[in-house]
Amino acid sequence: MGKVYVIGLGPGAEKEMTYQASTALEKSEVIIGYTVYTGLIRERFPDKKYLSTPMRQEVVRCEMAMDEAMKGRTVAMVCSGDAGIYGMAGLLYEMGQGYPEVELEVVPGITAANGGAAVLGAPLMHDFAVISLSDLLTPWEKIEKRIRGAAMADFVICLYNPSSRKRADYLKKACEYILEYQSPDTVCGYVRNIGREGEDAHILTLSELKDTEVDMFTTVYIGNSQTRNVDGKMVTPRGYRLEE
Amino acid sequence: MGKVYVIGLGPGAEKEMTYQASTALEKSEVIIGYTVYTGLIRERFPDKKYLSTPMRQEVVRCEMAMDEAMKGRTVAMVCSGDAGIYGMAGLLYEMGQGYPEVELEVVPGITAANGGAAVLGAPLMHDFAVISLSDLLTPWEKIEKRIRGAAMADFVICLYNPSSRKRADYLKKACEYILEYQSPDTVCGYVRNIGREGEDAHILTLSELKDTEVDMFTTVYIGNSQTRNVDGKMVTPRGYRLEE
Ligand SMILES: C[S@@+](CC[C@H](N)C(=O)[O-])C[C@H]1O[C@@H](n2cnc3c(N)ncnc32)[C@H](O)[C@@H]1O
Ligand SMILES: C[S@@+](CC[C@H](N)C(=O)[O-])C[C@H]1O[C@@H](n2cnc3c(N)ncnc32)[C@H](O)[C@@H]1O
Repeated sequence: MGKVYVIGLGPGAEKEMTYQASTALEKSEVIIGYTVYTGLIRERFPDKKYLSTPMRQEVVRCEMAMDEAMKGRTVAMVCSGDAGIYGMAGLLYEMGQGYPEVELEVVPGITAANGGAAVLGAPLMHDFAVISLSDLLTPWEKIEKRIRGAAMADFVICLYNPSSRKRADYLKKACEYILEYQSPDTVCGYVRNIGREGEDAHILTLSELKDTEVDMFTTVYIGNSQTRNVDGKMVTPRGYRLEE
Repeated sequence: MGKVYVIGLGPGAEKEMTYQASTALEKSEVIIGYTVYTGLIRERFPDKKYLSTPMRQEVVRCEMAMDEAMKGRTVAMVCSGDAGIYGMAGLLYEMGQGYPEVELEVVPGITAANGGAAVLGAPLMHDFAVISLSDLLTPWEKIEKRIRGAAMADFVICLYNPSSRKRADYLKKACEYILEYQSPDTVCGYVRNIGREGEDAHILTLSELKDTEVDMFTTVYIGNSQTRNVDGKMVTPRGYRLEE
């Protein structure tokens, strides 16, 4: 019986990979993914069958994985970050209904939110909301409602897909909604190329962020009302007593 | 000059550890943390100086780390999950202001939200909010506001610290708020001991969750209006076209 591991490689795909991900890759005979990610791991695991598809061919990629597994093979489907956060895990489970013989296992990875937070300092120390600004699959009204809901309830907000070719003003709009609830001085940050060459982090205010252009390889953080700039790091205080 | 690595070990502390965490532990001379976590890594890194404190002695633990670093040593402060999510990273940055010579570096880890999501299936595939039910440091009114804000905006909700000895009815209350906005049939899940011995996952409805008791080693997931139970897995659909 075939098996598909759905593996998150972390934002950097190298140093942020877990032992569990590495073990699953070792066990796999076929490795499938978007070319950029398979390239990064090919050096470490040269003796595998590699399959890849162009971007935005997610359904094709999942079918490839299922077909290989139906031949009795162990397959690794690799993703950047965590496959369960705006990744391939959900689609594979949905398609898996057509392939009841194939076992699926998600191997978690460091998602961009956590990877970028470590670069900025400690912005996600208190309650936070993760929102994608991509309206490919979600109506903008729903995205707006979530941004407003999160800002109103004073969540730290972490934005994925903050920009795309078609609509460069997504982030500006998001900031405008948040400015209705939070101060223009709210501490914000963004990180480009987390864990990759050219990693680049900035801390700025919400009113500055509103007029900043970022690209799609960037994750954006908007602090809550308590978030501070501590010696150039973005820090959301939690207090001193934790339950572990 | 001394350095403190603030290292997230992942929920399971073994298989979910990253290469980067392992490298930072190798470089460290002193390893500090709550006894349960240092125990798990002592076997792999036996030749280190280990320091630990009882639970809830976070300030003492941070002072220990800073004092060792002031002696010029490389120190690892270890945490379960990600040190930047309800962990030690924030406190260390705040205290770090008193020790400007000490360099701090956060090494991200798999947080419970991602680790548990992989066990349940793919519950966090769309926008989600992470909320701690601990009112040790946060007034309950603020927690209530965040739960309501998240439910109203149809976020998937992930709850940390869902229970404590003093108030066993936290989770019940949280579910009652959410039931004002979401259907009693909303698909929910919880995972106990993620990545550890005795890992235990359940999928159930929101109305069932309301009457379920969980302990503090558990992470709870409340689906959004789209979340489904797909052959016993908790799956929030995202759709088929992703931007990677
Ligand atoms: C379709 S989502 C995939 C998320 C991925 N599965 C994860 O868990 O990180 C793509 C978005 O994730 C964020 N992202 C992913 N990798 C990143 C990196 N290395 N640096 C900065 N942002 C990244 C960006 O916001 C990007 O637009
Ligand atoms: C103070 S928080 C620490 C979170 C940790 N820093 C992280 O990133 O996962 C403690 C809460 O995290 C969740 N948690 C941490 N480790 C867990 C595990 N192995 N299994 C289930 N829940 C866990 C539980 O909700 C617990 O009450």
